[in-house]
Amino acid sequence: MIAGVIGATGYVGAELVRLLSGHTEITGLSLSSVSFEGDRIEAVYPNFLKRVSVTLDKAEKVVENSAVIFSALPHGAGEDYGKVCMERGVPFIDLSADFRFGEDEETYTAWYGKSYKYPELRSYAVYGLPELNRQKIKERTGEGGVIIGNPGCYPTAVSLGGFPALAQGLAGPGTVIVDAASGITGGGREPSRAFHYPECADAVIPYKVGCHRHTPEISRNFAAMVRGDPPAVIFTPHLAPMNRGIQSTTYIPLSEPWRSRVVSGTTRPPNKEIEEKTGKIRELYAAFYRDEPFIRVLPSGVVAASNRVRQSNFCDISVHLDQAGTTLIVQSAIDNMVKGAAGQAIQNMNIIFGFDETAGLTAIPSLF
Amino acid sequence: MIAGVIGATGYVGAELVRLLSGHTEITGLSLSSVSFEGDRIEAVYPNFLKRVSVTLDKAEKVVENSAVIFSALPHGAGEDYGKVCMERGVPFIDLSADFRFGEDEETYTAWYGKSYKYPELRSYAVYGLPELNRQKIKERTGEGGVIIGNPGCYPTAVSLGGFPALAQGLAGPGTVIVDAASGITGGGREPSRAFHYPECADAVIPYKVGCHRHTPEISRNFAAMVRGDPPAVIFTPHLAPMNRGIQSTTYIPLSEPWRSRVVSGTTRPPNKEIEEKTGKIRELYAAFYRDEPFIRVLPSGVVAASNRVRQSNFCDISVHLDQAGTTLIVQSAIDNMVKGAAGQAIQNMNIIFGFDETAGLTAIPSLF
Amino acid sequence: MIAGVIGATGYVGAELVRLLSGHTEITGLSLSSVSFEGDRIEAVYPNFLKRVSVTLDKAEKVVENSAVIFSALPHGAGEDYGKVCMERGVPFIDLSADFRFGEDEETYTAWYGKSYKYPELRSYAVYGLPELNRQKIKERTGEGGVIIGNPGCYPTAVSLGGFPALAQGLAGPGTVIVDAASGITGGGREPSRAFHYPECADAVIPYKVGCHRHTPEISRNFAAMVRGDPPAVIFTPHLAPMNRGIQSTTYIPLSEPWRSRVVSGTTRPPNKEIEEKTGKIRELYAAFYRDEPFIRVLPSGVVAASNRVRQSNFCDISVHLDQAGTTLIVQSAIDNMVKGAAGQAIQNMNIIFGFDETAGLTAIPSLF
Amino acid sequence: MIAGVIGATGYVGAELVRLLSGHTEITGLSLSSVSFEGDRIEAVYPNFLKRVSVTLDKAEKVVENSAVIFSALPHGAGEDYGKVCMERGVPFIDLSADFRFGEDEETYTAWYGKSYKYPELRSYAVYGLPELNRQKIKERTGEGGVIIGNPGCYPTAVSLGGFPALAQGLAGPGTVIVDAASGITGGGREPSRAFHYPECADAVIPYKVGCHRHTPEISRNFAAMVRGDPPAVIFTPHLAPMNRGIQSTTYIPLSEPWRSRVVSGTTRPPNKEIEEKTGKIRELYAAFYRDEPFIRVLPSGVVAASNRVRQSNFCDISVHLDQAGTTLIVQSAIDNMVKGAAGQAIQNMNIIFGFDETAGLTAIPSLF
Repeated sequence: MIAGVIGATGYVGAELVRLLSGHTEITGLSLSSVSFEGDRIEAVYPNFLKRVSVTLDKAEKVVENSAVIFSALPHGAGEDYGKVCMERGVPFIDLSADFRFGEDEETYTAWYGKSYKYPELRSYAVYGLPELNRQKIKERTGEGGVIIGNPGCYPTAVSLGGFPALAQGLAGPGTVIVDAASGITGGGREPSRAFHYPECADAVIPYKVGCHRHTPEISRNFAAMVRGDPPAVIFTPHLAPMNRGIQSTTYIPLSEPWRSRVVSGTTRPPNKEIEEKTGKIRELYAAFYRDEPFIRVLPSGVVAASNRVRQSNFCDISVHLDQAGTTLIVQSAIDNMVKGAAGQAIQNMNIIFGFDETAGLTAIPSLF
Repeated sequence: MIAGVIGATGYVGAELVRLLSGHTEITGLSLSSVSFEGDRIEAVYPNFLKRVSVTLDKAEKVVENSAVIFSALPHGAGEDYGKVCMERGVPFIDLSADFRFGEDEETYTAWYGKSYKYPELRSYAVYGLPELNRQKIKERTGEGGVIIGNPGCYPTAVSLGGFPALAQGLAGPGTVIVDAASGITGGGREPSRAFHYPECADAVIPYKVGCHRHTPEISRNFAAMVRGDPPAVIFTPHLAPMNRGIQSTTYIPLSEPWRSRVVSGTTRPPNKEIEEKTGKIRELYAAFYRDEPFIRVLPSGVVAASNRVRQSNFCDISVHLDQAGTTLIVQSAIDNMVKGAAGQAIQNMNIIFGFDETAGLTAIPSLF
Repeated sequence: MIAGVIGATGYVGAELVRLLSGHTEITGLSLSSVSFEGDRIEAVYPNFLKRVSVTLDKAEKVVENSAVIFSALPHGAGEDYGKVCMERGVPFIDLSADFRFGEDEETYTAWYGKSYKYPELRSYAVYGLPELNRQKIKERTGEGGVIIGNPGCYPTAVSLGGFPALAQGLAGPGTVIVDAASGITGGGREPSRAFHYPECADAVIPYKVGCHRHTPEISRNFAAMVRGDPPAVIFTPHLAPMNRGIQSTTYIPLSEPWRSRVVSGTTRPPNKEIEEKTGKIRELYAAFYRDEPFIRVLPSGVVAASNRVRQSNFCDISVHLDQAGTTLIVQSAIDNMVKGAAGQAIQNMNIIFGFDETAGLTAIPSLF
Repeated sequence: MIAGVIGATGYVGAELVRLLSGHTEITGLSLSSVSFEGDRIEAVYPNFLKRVSVTLDKAEKVVENSAVIFSALPHGAGEDYGKVCMERGVPFIDLSADFRFGEDEETYTAWYGKSYKYPELRSYAVYGLPELNRQKIKERTGEGGVIIGNPGCYPTAVSLGGFPALAQGLAGPGTVIVDAASGITGGGREPSRAFHYPECADAVIPYKVGCHRHTPEISRNFAAMVRGDPPAVIFTPHLAPMNRGIQSTTYIPLSEPWRSRVVSGTTRPPNKEIEEKTGKIRELYAAFYRDEPFIRVLPSGVVAASNRVRQSNFCDISVHLDQAGTTLIVQSAIDNMVKGAAGQAIQNMNIIFGFDETAGLTAIPSLF
């Protein structure tokens, strides 16, 4: 089967090329690039020499040639191709934000400053977080024509970390606070001051504090897990001097009866009561994700960290409590380019086509 | 005046040597090291060649020779020297946790697993955060004999970031959440797995999630700023691949009437109301710190980041709100080795001796 | 087929586990560790969770269970296991220096300070650089019993970069100078001052200048390529702040008639004559390595760099000349943990067992 | 005295601002920027807040206001200001290559692709490497009107490392090979693919192999030290993942009788003869630089490394031999932004004005 990648020379596009090249069901690639049309992908990325050799074509040609399309174009640039794909019944997996909000154009417009070109396409769209929507993806595929709104990198890590707590009633009233850091590939391939080496090396730099556009996506995902009012969400991202990875810390206020009684104004040192409660929550988390191939709920004593999921499609999760016992603190870590982008897109393709969900995604995380 | 540094070959000790060497009131250094006794400091740290040349002596000798003592020993190892200093009326500035908790031995013991050797010394002790205790330091000095419990690196950044909000009634009921990252010098000079380059490069790694022993120090500092019950504090530190710096994000629930009315379950995109309210809070912050030589409340559009305070004694602070207007988000950044350790210790010395408070601490932050 | 790894919890051992786990001919792993005997490999390296699960055994047990043994022990520690393997006819692939010098015990002893425990084992030993000794490995295997002295990381990169020039008469009289940098995983897993993050981050640090023990190995390899006197070799390694990679620059004085006539004391700017001559040399290099699966002689305009071979078994080579035309400058780059250690060991296994030489080694270099 | 900086918002310009602000003889700064005219320097670089506050003016105004001009403009852009300065008798210190080649316009044009606008200005120009031309700078100043061609970063480190060997007859016939690495600030402030974080982090990347335009500058400097024919020079630079620093390795073939007799085709392990000879050469080096305030010839056992000169104007030098005793290997390290640019420019100003040569340049290298 031929897989097509539109926008193959950005970082996400190139990562798709790398991962698809090792996928047993994919027999060929069709790739497009506006900036490098006519060049070969291995001239743009010499990493590919002796492994991948494809001439970069126009997007239209890629759509014609392929049994599945991955669109790694900027927000607002891919709808035309999505439309053609729907007309032909070719699954369209979009890695921009364009299809993440489904029929909620208002939220999309408010945060991304664009409007939908073909609103009717949203009836085909499923938000492609398999741990949330695996069934919907299959159903939509069965009805003929599917568009995947592939999730953002931060929302993937954060949502997967929060779901079990929300779904199982651990979260009480109050705001969920998310503090996270991203590797610098998250900013894409285009040079700019913010990602110029001397400006971002040797520092952790917050940005879009309290107003990043992944906030509504996280919030909407959380809402899907609770019956009553969903929690308010506050989200602060940071740029960290690492190539890959999302490291996310999520603070969830505990519900009764999980919440301990606290004496105001004091702090408790590490104690057994908290350790035991943490153990119970860890068990709930492990049970919730028992059948998920890419979620690893870590054992006691191991903290989720981005350097343990490098190059893999895993999401690692560790659960913690503050020592007063009022708040669940979830650490979740993914590779922003794999589970946070290209890997998850391939996972969605696997579901759509009925392949083994782990096909092409069995890499063991690199140790360093 | 001769300044003495006990434990001069650890990272904090060596940074003290570097900074004291540029201090106009210091005419000579007396240094000790258990591991390198008899060697010269410039043999241990060749950085010092042609600038500092001192033979490493016994701690006892250093105490005899010096008009002020900086102790950069591990927790629990410096009390004997503090005792001798008090007997001789020599100011003792301790960079361990031993004197940070004053007469509250219970908290110290609960979190550090040690007890006080000479509890009576605490009557001389002042917690050396000048922005909080400048007056107390002067008073204690005037009474003859002063011990400074020099603050921890995280508590310095976090407390300074939170003080104006707490003191001016911006904080409402609810937990204050602190999420912070430290450069790897914070772990000291002794090699270990956690700080072995391949284990911590290219990753952001949480540790002591919800149970770090700087929590009670932060909590106690916050309590000093409020009249009623102090807020509960939750603190999660991370190790970041940078040499120096503390980058701290503090989430403070707003009090009425600062708090906006929120419609549950939705998120608001960046909006003018929030921008204006942020401007007002920024003004309160700026006013609060108007006379502080080392605090910079940043103008609109500039986010506090650790790479803008490198090598300096500054604490940079920027204030933000979530777009729903329920929570104040404070970014504060310091150099963990300067304002977070050696620089602050020298600032305390300056206060004790009536020197210009910025003496030896006028370095402009390095641009890279 | 069961593969055994002795010393599986060091960095090289763990990388072997990772790569062998993806090898289609390997059905199981048997692993040993002195420090972690009885633990599971995925407890030592949580990266392996859900992918590899093996209890760490005694080395003796591993030798009993396996059809091939990889020894990732320190120099001088593995001979006993090599002896047992030879008695049983099990191929023994040693990643230390113990078998790299064959019967030249004198050189080994001079540089490594140890003597051979079982000198007779060297009659089974082949130096495992496949591009040099593929045929010898097969022959030795055919004669029953083979020990591989797996090459050092620097010698692999440097030798592969120099071979075509030496074999094809491009090298004239004079010293070959090698200046190279290694990622910090090259120093192994054991914490020490040299590899403590704050000591090696943000710096390039030369070490063992002119006296590193990989010098005789490089020199011996070069000698194999020339008929007359081999060139003298000078080698300077550097520690660079990166996790993986060897980046090597080799300066080879050109022979007549490749050497241009130079006017003393002047420098020539980039010029066409040099460009053309470089093109010819590039063709010779490409021809020399035409059939090698893991060597990539890069096209004009692309410089070999360690971040283009990350995670792969490739050796990238680019050729350059100084503008005066007297010296060939070869850039070669490998991943020190793959082609410089574990990957090359597996390549050797593939040759010994008649597997496809690229089995388990088809990873596309990671883009970042 | 007012110092003027033209092009104050590039990295070199900003570093000049930082260093000049701490110079006791400088009472005010006048700064220009084309991109940020009318803004304040502390708005462009918030590092300067509370320390430096200057509005960015036109270059013409800066020239009018200042007693000395530092030009941090690109190559070919500053001659007009140099002309005005000469007309007014204001020292002009140029940090581009425009005045480094004096009357040798041919070399400048061949390597930089530009011609001189005012060739007559070269009669005022001195190449500003104080250790080479201190006397010439003073003489030229005494004659009224001086232009400094401030050296390149690589040529500074390399030349200082080679001078003692060349001047004292240690260098025999043969090519001098220079292999060096630079921190990424060397590429300036303008974002580009080469300096985009994910493209240069975690890698050492050679560039301009054998054809970098600092080659003729190094060659010319070396020529000044020898009586007969100067050695040919080959130079290969690398980009290293660090913010600051030049780390240079220079291979100088030894002259008789320094050169040892070598048995072809063998390598010698570390030995006493070489150690002793190295000691003698170290003494010659130390004697050569005895009176230099910024050169540190390191003692035995200490290797020059860029992380020991950070933030300082020092050039550290360590000498080594290959174990066969044919080649001197010099390690030299500087901070590329200080001794390699802004610091050296200030050192030149100090000489011109008769200030203490170390004024404003007494910083102790940062330990991390």
